[in-house]
Amino acid sequence: MRVSVIGGGRVTDEEAATAEELGRELAERGHEVVCGGLGGVMAAACRGASEAGGHTIGILPTERRADANDYVDTAVATGMGNARNVLVVMNGDAVIAVDGGTGTLSELGHALDVDRPVAGIGTHRIDGVEGIDHVETAEAAVESVERRA
Amino acid sequence: MRVSVIGGGRVTDEEAATAEELGRELAERGHEVVCGGLGGVMAAACRGASEAGGHTIGILPTERRADANDYVDTAVATGMGNARNVLVVMNGDAVIAVDGGTGTLSELGHALDVDRPVAGIGTHRIDGVEGIDHVETAEAAVESVERRA
Amino acid sequence: MRVSVIGGGRVTDEEAATAEELGRELAERGHEVVCGGLGGVMAAACRGASEAGGHTIGILPTERRADANDYVDTAVATGMGNARNVLVVMNGDAVIAVDGGTGTLSELGHALDVDRPVAGIGTHRIDGVEGIDHVETAEAAVESVERRA
Amino acid sequence: MRVSVIGGGRVTDEEAATAEELGRELAERGHEVVCGGLGGVMAAACRGASEAGGHTIGILPTERRADANDYVDTAVATGMGNARNVLVVMNGDAVIAVDGGTGTLSELGHALDVDRPVAGIGTHRIDGVEGIDHVETAEAAVESVERRA
Repeated sequence: MRVSVIGGGRVTDEEAATAEELGRELAERGHEVVCGGLGGVMAAACRGASEAGGHTIGILPTERRADANDYVDTAVATGMGNARNVLVVMNGDAVIAVDGGTGTLSELGHALDVDRPVAGIGTHRIDGVEGIDHVETAEAAVESVERRA
Repeated sequence: MRVSVIGGGRVTDEEAATAEELGRELAERGHEVVCGGLGGVMAAACRGASEAGGHTIGILPTERRADANDYVDTAVATGMGNARNVLVVMNGDAVIAVDGGTGTLSELGHALDVDRPVAGIGTHRIDGVEGIDHVETAEAAVESVERRA
Repeated sequence: MRVSVIGGGRVTDEEAATAEELGRELAERGHEVVCGGLGGVMAAACRGASEAGGHTIGILPTERRADANDYVDTAVATGMGNARNVLVVMNGDAVIAVDGGTGTLSELGHALDVDRPVAGIGTHRIDGVEGIDHVETAEAAVESVERRA
Repeated sequence: MRVSVIGGGRVTDEEAATAEELGRELAERGHEVVCGGLGGVMAAACRGASEAGGHTIGILPTERRADANDYVDTAVATGMGNARNVLVVMNGDAVIAVDGGTGTLSELGHALDVDRPVAGIGTHRIDGVEGIDHVETAEAAVESVERRA
């Protein structure tokens, strides 16, 4: 299947390591990765997937495919700014969040809105919102969405 | 100024009353209301604003202006589905949420992402996210965003 | 009804005069004007409509309502660049083009695609495409779309 | 490079043959194909590219990747209707049109608007618009955009 990986554009080393492991895990299990195509969690997940031989898609906020990180195989420019966030989650069969700021929060909302199974590692906890499976590891996140997709 | 009112398409009587009071309060203080143009919180806020002589704008997910609720003065069709959520918050100088589900959650994320002052009445509480002023009444919500816009 | 006015952002004095007359004519007959919100034909049409007491809507390519010309009553920011062109024509019941470059060409395509009646004053003539009524004056353009809307 | 192929969703056998040859020619020369992902010219071009071992991208108007034709390798759903047309041309380094109706006309406008080299086989001829190289064969179209990209 195809999994949307969402998370902050600026990350700690630990978050980057988690995102990279997540990308690798997804690719090893035969899944494509789709993300926002930029840095931070997005670049780390693409690097992990790419090194494991997976296909990576980056849906960019800008009009220039060249803005994609180096590990994006198929870059899609939109020129729509953060309105592209809804495309990032719409184009996965499931969504996994690693940490993340307010952009990620909007993506969590959109993901739940279109009924995607969502797993999160260290991501937002939101009172009264169901559907996000908070887990500790990349492997647990992948298993969570595989089970529910 | 112009204030984005966000919230669920299906509401309890109490939530509708709050949204209507919010619309009226905004109009009486000279503010325009922009919302998603449909029912629930959106319709109630537009009704309140409209009855107090305010101008209301509805940015619709569909291609048909006729889908707007009866209290929208200026309907804007988009045909973009929930990608229009980002337009709803982008088009206000501040954002007020009344309750709300996952669509509202995406709008809260987008609102914080573009640095709008946000107030919420009975809306999502999100761990580790700053910038939402949780208040109890329509009046307090309006005062909160007026102070910060 | 509401009429989309499309045309170039840079215009000759004659084109500006035509667009201004068009805006005035539309407002005097009770129609709203929707356009791309910027300069040239858009600003001239809004000025004409505004001076005749009409309501004008500008759907902007940028994220900033402040980018609208001075004669736009209701500005709608999109941050979507030229993807907003489809919104400009979708939000009118009919479309009138005054001259225009490649952006206007895309709008003519979108307008015909959503079956809007289209009139044009000095606009593109396209082999094999039906549905554009080429006329000489603002008055004739308004009458053409009134008859067919 | 990546080339946007645009054209009608319903085609004659001759147009389909031309589009298929175009897809094959592009793939054999090492180019990716991006299109609107549906039938007619889009499906034929993807089939030709796919059979020659090329990578094909389909940017869909709907929210469902499953709506893509069988020869799309990477489907991107948008849920934006015809506003996705601007994404189709933005995501190519050059644009080739095969015949085409009003949707194609909007794409020609957008393509010229973002300064893509454009070639057309049996497509719209537009008075006063420069930048479309009208050619007779798939091979000539590819050579035309290769020379100018």
